[in-house]
Amino acid sequence: MVEISRRQAIEDVASDLFREHGYAATSIRDIARALSVQGASLYAHVTSKEDVLWAIVDRAASRFEAAADRAGREAEARRPGDSAEAVAALVRAHVEVLTGDVDEAGVFVHEWRALGEERRAAILARRDAYETRFRRRIEAGIAVGAFDMTDPAIASTALLSALNGVATWYDPDGRLTAERIADHLVDLALRMLEGRA
Amino acid sequence: MVEISRRQAIEDVASDLFREHGYAATSIRDIARALSVQGASLYAHVTSKEDVLWAIVDRAASRFEAAADRAGREAEARRPGDSAEAVAALVRAHVEVLTGDVDEAGVFVHEWRALGEERRAAILARRDAYETRFRRRIEAGIAVGAFDMTDPAIASTALLSALNGVATWYDPDGRLTAERIADHLVDLALRMLEGRA
Repeated sequence: MVEISRRQAIEDVASDLFREHGYAATSIRDIARALSVQGASLYAHVTSKEDVLWAIVDRAASRFEAAADRAGREAEARRPGDSAEAVAALVRAHVEVLTGDVDEAGVFVHEWRALGEERRAAILARRDAYETRFRRRIEAGIAVGAFDMTDPAIASTALLSALNGVATWYDPDGRLTAERIADHLVDLALRMLEGRA
Repeated sequence: MVEISRRQAIEDVASDLFREHGYAATSIRDIARALSVQGASLYAHVTSKEDVLWAIVDRAASRFEAAADRAGREAEARRPGDSAEAVAALVRAHVEVLTGDVDEAGVFVHEWRALGEERRAAILARRDAYETRFRRRIEAGIAVGAFDMTDPAIASTALLSALNGVATWYDPDGRLTAERIADHLVDLALRMLEGRA
C-alpha cells in the first residue's frame, strides 16, 4: 500500500510538471525536488522518466475508455438507438475525464508523442480504437438520417480534436464549470452533426 | 544567399525530425546526421536546438497571420459583412497553411510548448491574438443573427482545435486532397455556427 501511494504521488507530481513545463524540459531530478526527495531515491520506484510518462498516459487512456463504455451503455439504456443521445453522452464523458484530472489529461493529449516507439504505437492504436467509437456512432446517425451527410472520419477527428483542446485551456477556477463547458460542447457537436436540417 | 539556404535546409530537416520523433527525442546530432554533416559544423549556423525550434515556430506563426489577413480582406471584398463567408475564408486559409507545409505546421501545433519561457510566452500571445480574429468574427455573426447563439470563446477555441487536428493526421498522399479536407471543415464549421436555424 505504501508503495502504491508513493508511486501515485510520483505520477501526480510528474503530471503537474510535464503539463506545466513539458516532458522534455522536466527531469527526474525536478520530480524528486518537487517531492522533496533525492533523485537517487526516486529510482527505487521508477526506472526512467519515460516509465512515469507511460504510467500517466496508460492510466489516462484507460479512464477515457471506461468512461466511453459507461456513457455508451447509459445512453443506450435511456434512449435506445438515439444517435444524438449517444454522441452527447460520448462528448460529455470525454469532457468529464479531461476536466476531472487536468494534469493527467493534458499529458495524455500533448506528451504521448514523447514515448518510445513501441509504447507510442500502443497508445496510437488505443487512440484509433477510441476514435472509432465516435466515428461508428456518427456513421450510424447518418445512416438513419439523424445526422446530415458528412465525411465521418473527418467529423470524428474534428470533434475529438475540438474536445481535446479543453485540456489546453481548461481552468478549474475559470469562468465556466466543467459541466457548463460540456453543455456547450455537446451543443456545438450536435449542431455540427445535425446540420441545417 | 548560401547562408540563407543552408539555414533553411537545417530548419526543413529539423521540422521533419521534430514532427516524426518529437522535439525532445531529436538531437542536434540527429539533425546533422540527416544533413550528412558533422554536429560541430551545424553550430556555425545555429546556436542551439531551441533556436531551430524557435525559427520554425516563428515562421509558421507568421504564415498563419499573413494567410488570415489576406483571407479576411478577400472575403470582405467578395461579400462585405458576410459572416459565413468570413469564417469560411479563415478556415480555408488555416487549413491551407497547415497542409502546405505539414512538418512545419505539425511542429508549430505540437512542439511550441518546448520553447523556453520567454519565447513560449511570445508565441502564446500571438496564438491568442490569432484566435481572437476567429472569436470576433463569430461574435459579429451572432450579433447580426447569422450564427446561432453560443459562447464565442468556446466556439472559436473548439473550431481552432478541430482545425489544428489536421496537422496530426493529414497525409499528402492520403484519401482526400487538402482542398477537399478544407471543404469538409468549412461545412462542419458553418453547421456548428449556423446551428439548426
